[in-house]
Amino acid sequence: MNATPLADLSADDLAALLHEQQAAYEELKAKGLSLDLTRGKPSAQQLDLSDRLLQLPSTTRSASGVDVRNYGGLEGLKELREMFAELLWVEPEQLVAGGSSSLTMMRECLVDLVLFGGVDSERPWGQEEKVRFVCPVPGYDRHFTLLESLGIEMLTVPMDDDGPDAEAVAALVADDPTIKGMWVVPTYANPTGAVVTQEVAARLTSMPTAAPDFKIFWDNAYALHHLTEDEAKSADVLTLASAAGHPHRPIMFASTSKITYAGAGVAFLAASTDNVAWYLRHLGNGSIGPDKVNHLRHVEFFGTPQGVRDHMVKHREIIAPKFAEVDRVLTERLGGRGVATWNTPAGGYFVNLDVVPGTASRVVELAREAGVALTPAGSSFPYKQDPDDTNIRLAPTMPPVAEVTGAMEAVATCVLLAAAEKASQGTQDA
Amino acid sequence: MNATPLADLSADDLAALLHEQQAAYEELKAKGLSLDLTRGKPSAQQLDLSDRLLQLPSTTRSASGVDVRNYGGLEGLKELREMFAELLWVEPEQLVAGGSSSLTMMRECLVDLVLFGGVDSERPWGQEEKVRFVCPVPGYDRHFTLLESLGIEMLTVPMDDDGPDAEAVAALVADDPTIKGMWVVPTYANPTGAVVTQEVAARLTSMPTAAPDFKIFWDNAYALHHLTEDEAKSADVLTLASAAGHPHRPIMFASTSKITYAGAGVAFLAASTDNVAWYLRHLGNGSIGPDKVNHLRHVEFFGTPQGVRDHMVKHREIIAPKFAEVDRVLTERLGGRGVATWNTPAGGYFVNLDVVPGTASRVVELAREAGVALTPAGSSFPYKQDPDDTNIRLAPTMPPVAEVTGAMEAVATCVLLAAAEKASQGTQDA
Repeated sequence: MNATPLADLSADDLAALLHEQQAAYEELKAKGLSLDLTRGKPSAQQLDLSDRLLQLPSTTRSASGVDVRNYGGLEGLKELREMFAELLWVEPEQLVAGGSSSLTMMRECLVDLVLFGGVDSERPWGQEEKVRFVCPVPGYDRHFTLLESLGIEMLTVPMDDDGPDAEAVAALVADDPTIKGMWVVPTYANPTGAVVTQEVAARLTSMPTAAPDFKIFWDNAYALHHLTEDEAKSADVLTLASAAGHPHRPIMFASTSKITYAGAGVAFLAASTDNVAWYLRHLGNGSIGPDKVNHLRHVEFFGTPQGVRDHMVKHREIIAPKFAEVDRVLTERLGGRGVATWNTPAGGYFVNLDVVPGTASRVVELAREAGVALTPAGSSFPYKQDPDDTNIRLAPTMPPVAEVTGAMEAVATCVLLAAAEKASQGTQDA
Repeated sequence: MNATPLADLSADDLAALLHEQQAAYEELKAKGLSLDLTRGKPSAQQLDLSDRLLQLPSTTRSASGVDVRNYGGLEGLKELREMFAELLWVEPEQLVAGGSSSLTMMRECLVDLVLFGGVDSERPWGQEEKVRFVCPVPGYDRHFTLLESLGIEMLTVPMDDDGPDAEAVAALVADDPTIKGMWVVPTYANPTGAVVTQEVAARLTSMPTAAPDFKIFWDNAYALHHLTEDEAKSADVLTLASAAGHPHRPIMFASTSKITYAGAGVAFLAASTDNVAWYLRHLGNGSIGPDKVNHLRHVEFFGTPQGVRDHMVKHREIIAPKFAEVDRVLTERLGGRGVATWNTPAGGYFVNLDVVPGTASRVVELAREAGVALTPAGSSFPYKQDPDDTNIRLAPTMPPVAEVTGAMEAVATCVLLAAAEKASQGTQDA
């Protein structure tokens, strides 16, 4: 294996490499692959882990005496809220159990802020001249699309290994009242895998903000989604915020979408009791209560909070080898080449791959033409604009391991080819 | 049984009646009742009809090959949409199957109209000086609360036996562009039980409106909820509107909340394909798809559209006797007294009781003090204001028949007592 950095190659060697990768790419295309690493979806094997749900619940009445089949109970079933309150380190009265999508709850909160304002707002956000959000990048594309759809402008800060660059955030929000909030994926972030440290969480919850109603949308989508036995603990954001005198700043979201069924789990919202009352008041104008049958189904399925943790170990056993395979292929094929860096996440659903600046779009295009679907380049940035055209999000959970291998071999070829193309252009230009 | 109208009684006879009803009421209070006719909720016996759902679905893949456990399929499961398209007389591509609440879909549509405008809007409704809706009264309290929460003003028109007073509606909307929409519960309306005729539906879908984006929120909540063998057919509002050149005017809503489980059914939205695309585009910013497991659960449970109709017969067998009991007690106790009129609905969930003008609040108060909870007087009117204080909504489905009897006996006593009080005041005043 030749592992000389491309930058150190002679013009002849570079030309040879380009030729070699072009040949490899033609070979790849001839295989007629049809592989997909685009979305963070659980595999059928993972979904199978929860198929006992299909026979539950075994009763129609909860332990607290509620007929789960009928209307009512806007805040969600007590027993399920108690179970997940423990897992998310919040109090049950701070937790709402809703429908099957936490993204829906995020949109509901943003819409309510725009139309009505929050508990600490001077007016509805929709009546402000301008509303802006801080977005750590790379981040989750649906967060950005959601803001864009509501006309909320986006400012970026770097997502570091310990979370968002808190000093950069603090500097932005200190004097600018148009900055009304920020996104944080605190645990095994999408897509970098970073875990927000206590220190960063403390800084974000305590920093002075010019906007009195600054909100942290704390999307704890991967709170329990460990890939190693060294399990990261999410910072206790509600307590930190409360201690810092900003109890209404964070709104936490979570779900069982990647614990039980991606499309038929239960979503959660956690916040100060005032925020919860605010959320439920608006929710109640369009709902007589969530699907409590599905709530009870989940209570029976897990039994206890520990039951959830035990269940997550089974997921880890299925998907950790896929992440290992991504790392193995990238290391073998690209190690030492100076054409890419990537992370080895300890949890979550993604590998963050940074290729030679200016080539990410080309890599995705090459992969597509070879039958490997990747998330479009730029997706992890607001307005889909990666300023360096360097970032690619890999989602290896859905395909079987053998397909992950094939897809990653293809990705490696495309990364190398794009890098060689780019380096050769540089040579020609010079 | 004395059935002389109160207005025809001599002063002495009226005093005797008042005394008699006061004694009856004291007796009633002494019973220590605790009965509830407030909400249109199915009874446990009705919910039991669907308990086979708890063992379904038997597979995780739909006939069309979709793994229902995973993300995706924003428009809902094909097989379920096909089944209910037939029942609602729409095309499958005009129908979206969503979560468990049609009220949620109504709020989503209104929010999207306010924030973004509809397919035929000149601007978002939120940017209009004023937005108003026509509300047939009496009507559904949650419809009115929803409008009020969004700052949409309400104008009332009478709800007649053949539907909303279409001429009154047409006169209002012809020249006033601030009137952007109206509510209609077309089949067995809440609370009057009226069924919108083809003629009224044709008038409402074809009338000229000053607002180019006038919307009919066609809440077909009781489309299949017959109380007799003479089953009303809902007007085909989408076809009528399309034929009249206003294809985007109606948005239909329906659900299985009162077919399977009130809190865990499936809700539907039907509209022109442009409207459906509009709805899904906004929905997609906050959703990766509905609970398709519950969709497949319903497909398997019913089997065919006829399976749904057959299932509704079982509901009828349970609740028709309760409606008959309401009518029996009211007839026996109040017939000929000139103190109340009420309907005998052929479907739906409510009986509409009109008492002596000026006494509805008093009746509800008397009933409450005697342990019988009724929907607050005025609830069926915008801003909870019944101008005549005459209307009371009775919801007899939830309690067992014996409790319906007890509650209605109590209601009858309260109606008579309030009427006698009022008549006596009149005598004293004169």
